[in-house]
This record gives sequence, C-alpha cells and structure tokens, in this order.
Amino acid sequence: MRQIRVVQWGLGAMGSGMARLIAAKSGLQLVGGIDSRPDYVGQDLGTVLGIDPLGVTVTDDPSSVLDKEQVDCVVIATTSWIAEQIDDLRTILRAGINCVSIAEEMASPEAQSPELARELDELAKAGGVSIIGTGVNPGLSMDLLVVALTAGCHEVTSIEASRVNDLSPYGPTVMRTQGVGLSEEEFRRGVEDGSVDGHIGFPESARMISDALGLGVDRIEQRREPIISTVRRETPHVVVEPGMVAGCKQTLLGYRGDEVVLTLVHPQQVLPELEGQGTGDYITIEGTPRIQMQITPEYAGGTATKGIAVNCVPRIVEASPGLKSMLDIPVPAALMGDSAYARRV
Amino acid sequence: MRQIRVVQWGLGAMGSGMARLIAAKSGLQLVGGIDSRPDYVGQDLGTVLGIDPLGVTVTDDPSSVLDKEQVDCVVIATTSWIAEQIDDLRTILRAGINCVSIAEEMASPEAQSPELARELDELAKAGGVSIIGTGVNPGLSMDLLVVALTAGCHEVTSIEASRVNDLSPYGPTVMRTQGVGLSEEEFRRGVEDGSVDGHIGFPESARMISDALGLGVDRIEQRREPIISTVRRETPHVVVEPGMVAGCKQTLLGYRGDEVVLTLVHPQQVLPELEGQGTGDYITIEGTPRIQMQITPEYAGGTATKGIAVNCVPRIVEASPGLKSMLDIPVPAALMGDSAYARRV
Repeated sequence: MRQIRVVQWGLGAMGSGMARLIAAKSGLQLVGGIDSRPDYVGQDLGTVLGIDPLGVTVTDDPSSVLDKEQVDCVVIATTSWIAEQIDDLRTILRAGINCVSIAEEMASPEAQSPELARELDELAKAGGVSIIGTGVNPGLSMDLLVVALTAGCHEVTSIEASRVNDLSPYGPTVMRTQGVGLSEEEFRRGVEDGSVDGHIGFPESARMISDALGLGVDRIEQRREPIISTVRRETPHVVVEPGMVAGCKQTLLGYRGDEVVLTLVHPQQVLPELEGQGTGDYITIEGTPRIQMQITPEYAGGTATKGIAVNCVPRIVEASPGLKSMLDIPVPAALMGDSAYARRV
Repeated sequence: MRQIRVVQWGLGAMGSGMARLIAAKSGLQLVGGIDSRPDYVGQDLGTVLGIDPLGVTVTDDPSSVLDKEQVDCVVIATTSWIAEQIDDLRTILRAGINCVSIAEEMASPEAQSPELARELDELAKAGGVSIIGTGVNPGLSMDLLVVALTAGCHEVTSIEASRVNDLSPYGPTVMRTQGVGLSEEEFRRGVEDGSVDGHIGFPESARMISDALGLGVDRIEQRREPIISTVRRETPHVVVEPGMVAGCKQTLLGYRGDEVVLTLVHPQQVLPELEGQGTGDYITIEGTPRIQMQITPEYAGGTATKGIAVNCVPRIVEASPGLKSMLDIPVPAALMGDSAYARRV
C-alpha cells in the first residue's frame, strides 16, 4: 500500500496534535510542516512535535514544500475564518494539492462567502483536486450526525440539536473569546464589539442541514448570552466567581418563513458539572419517525477535531475534484492504518 | 428538476410502504410495480397501494417495465437472502438500471457471498449503474451510525452496539422466525433446524464496520438465545404466557485473534416494557475519545427501513458504477423533495 503523503500547515495546539496523529498512522506519511514561529523554522518537524526526528524541517515558505509530485494532501489549521485563510487555500489548490481545513467557516463556505466558495470549487476542479472543511463542530456533532439520523425518516418537520461542553481544558484564547471570567456587562460589550465571538460555525451547520434535507431555512438568527455562574469555578487559566460569566450560550434559530424549523443550542462554559449540568450532544428530529439521540459526555471537542481532520485525508484524496462538505463524501471512519479506505487509495 | 423514475419490485408490507413513499416524494416518480400476486397483477398500482390511481398497472413480468430509457432505479423488497434475490438482481443490472435492495444480506454481500458480490459489482459496472443494500439494520443503526461515531476517533480498541426493540407491530411471519410464543425447547429446536432464524444481517454489519475501520475482525461467532418471559405478553398476533419465549436475543462476537473487538447484541421481543425494559439503540466506542451514544426509544425499524431505502435512491442514481455499501456513499438525508441531493441528479 502506498502511503498518503501529508503536509501539516499550522503547528499550534490543534495543528501539532494533528501532525503527531498523521505521523502515527501507518497509512499516512508526514512529509512536511509549515509554520512561521521563529523557534520552529529550520527545526526537524519531529523534534518540534516532541516525537522522533522525521528528517524534514519546518518551513515558513509554503512554496518550498507544496510540490504535487511529493504531496497528496495539506491539512491546514491556522484560523477559524475563511477571509484569513483564503490566500493560503489558493496557494494549496493552485499547487494541485488536496486540502483538509479545520477553519470553522470552511465547513460550508457557501453559508457566508458564496463567491469564495465558487472560487475554491473552480480552483480545485482546475487542479483536479478536492478541498473540505471539517472538525467536531461544525463538521460532525451538530450537522453530519444530525443528517445521518434523518437517513431513515419519511419526513422531518423540525430539528433541535444542542451541545453542552466543558471549556476547562482550553487556554487563555478560548477563555477570552467565550467571555469566561468577565462580568455580565463586559460580556455584553464584548459581544457587541466582536471580542467575545462565541462559537464559530452555526451558519455553516445550518446551511449544511437545510441543503441536505431541503428543510427550506431562509433566514437565521443567532444569539450569544452570558452563562452567569452561581458558584465559584476555577481552571488553570481562569477563575469565575459567583455572579461572573462562566461561558457563552449560543443559539441559532433557522426559519422557514415564520416557522422555526431548526434550533441549534451550544452553551460553552467551564466546569458545568459544578452546577449539576452534565455535558453531552443531544439531537431531536421531529418527523416520521421521531428520533432522540444523546451522546454523554459530549463528543470530546479538541480530540475529535484532530481525529476527524486526519480521518478525512483518505476521503478527500479519493474524492472527485471540487469543494466538498462532510455531506458530500462517504462518512469518515477512524483510520486504523489498514482500513479499506486507506487500501483503496 | 427532472424527477427520478422508480420501479418498486415487491409489494408486500415493506414494498407497498416504500412505493407509497416514492409516490409521495416530489423528487421521485413511481413509474412501475412488479409483484406476482394474482389479485395485484393488471390492477392500477395506485389502487393496489390505496392511493390515487397512477396510470400504471402492476405486472408480474419484470422485462415489461425494466427499460433503462424509462426507469432510473428499481427498489426491490422481496426477501432477506441474496440466494433468493440474485436472479432478479441480475435482471435489473443487465437491463442497465440502478438498484436499491432491502435484502439484509445485500448490505454487504462480501460477508457471506464474495463470489456473488464480485459478479454484482462487474454486472453493475458493465451496465454503468450501481447497486446497494440498505435498511435500518443492517444499513443504519448497527453499522453506519457506528462508523459515523468513530469519525473523530484517533484510535478504536473495541466496539459494542446493541439494539433493543419491540416486535409487537409485526405479524405472524416475524413472530414465527423470531420464535415468539414458543416453549424454550421448541425455540432451541427451531434455531437448530433453521425455522427460528432471528436477525439477519450481523455478519454483514460486522464486515462493514471491520472493513471501514481496519478493525481486523478475522472470525465471528453468532448466538441465538430465547428471551423467556416472566409475565404475560399479548399482541394481536401472539400470546406469550410466563415461561414461554418472548423473542430472540441474538449476539455476534467479532474476534481479532483471541480478542473480542466487536460485540453486537440484538434482543428482539414483543413488549419488553412489560418487564421494565425500555427500547433503544446503544453504541459504545472504546477508544480515543471514548463515545457513548443512545437513541431511545429505538430507531423505529419498519418505518426507517422504508425511509432509508427511498432516501438512498438519489444517492445510488448519482453514485459511480459498481456494488456499493452504506459506507461507500455520502450519508443519505431524509429526502424532502427539493433537497440538494435531488437537485443535483
């Protein structure tokens, strides 16, 4: 079996975890790493990752490694936003190389950037390659699983999905963007000025679900509300006193005309169990049949995003050219090295 | 949008339900019905289905309707076993028409009939069409959903899936093949002589999961045990007195070497709630991360098999030629008529 040769672009917390996973999979070969941190550039990629040396050095010059004769796929983990990633995506596709991105907005670029979506689709087709955005959310827990659960339905009248998670494993950036530790007033001001941006990806999940089912969502509303703690909550990165904000409860309502047909609810906070709130993913499909699913505790976020990005690599390498979503490719499986997917490529 | 033209082969309880669903979907057009019952042949298909006349008559001569210029897909619901269906599948594929089968063994013909699987793949490719086996189980609840839940995993060490359902909606055939109402001795004799065959599809689900993940299952064991009732259970078709058999608990163990890496458990019985047993689908993935999912009550069986067969029609019409499984195609969505899937075809 020929190994799939992968370059990891972005070696932050997520990217370095993905790179280690790529290096560990027998069906995949980690052939390059791109990052601009001065202390990484020129170092052996394995050394940077804390594993055995790999014999390739980290570079800050993408053009030096993006050779389609040497690379089958780039996995990119640099930002949540298409606008910040689009130039790098163009570079990858123009080099004729497949791409998996964990930028949340890339789960369905059509949702908020239809012109960029069209451009990416055209660039990918011109290069004979494919590109996809994935992650645990968007990409799995609040869209792909929702659609998969409707597979046996005769009709669907409305859908509600909620994901209750615990932010305590995360660092200062996540605390800040979710408003953890702020006062209620600071939180509301942060939502207004954009410094508290909460969960990125609801418009994308809504678009994926509505398009797949023909649910007819023609308008969405999003809300970001503070979760006010009644108890003291402490993590290595933040202390939340009673009365302060423990996290951000984000809600999306998807309307068809005046009717709400899709509700997505994502309260993200530190240590919800201190107030008796368990974590989990919950999906209810109102239709024929009615379906109620729960995954408890929640599908572990950071771990799963790394996993699904790497598990998508063989899928996107074998996909037909163009811009894909998680609903356009066969469902990825945990890639155990010698799976049928890997064998087929 | 051009409608997908579908012929329903087999107008029993499942097939007639699927035909009604096809007739109701705006993206699909029901253009023929095949069945040999004398009271159906020559009648208007709509009349037979209890809906408005459709202007096409039920026929017992497949060749009279299997014209690839007029038909995009046949949905066939005639039996659980490949050996009983293979001649009809050959007829469909040789006519150059796509096919969705709900024969349980067709979910993964490779599992028990590798030579027929190869033949079907070759016939489909020669005709430029595709063929798939689907249903709620096998096809969704104990294989596709299992694999989908691993999508974010770094590794999987073992899997257990169980499905606890209620057989009380079913008629005399299901009661007989599940051994409901028998004495324990009659049940065990029935398992030996094959008259109690329990659930069909475990080898197929095991094969799908193991192949997708590279789980390495190299040997399977199946057991069929009687569920002895401690209370009286009565349905319109059967009475189970205390001490008699209320159903069949089927178990599959999938071994890699000496280690059990896959366990499938499916206790099928009438009215389990009379003994305090709720129904549901339960999946546990042991791995990184660990995942525990439940759907309660169970994903409604007969309803969902009809739904998933019809929802697969656009997927199999647009698939590349060959024999497919539910893990080879993008996950089907509840087909609402104007979904993206239907639009694309």
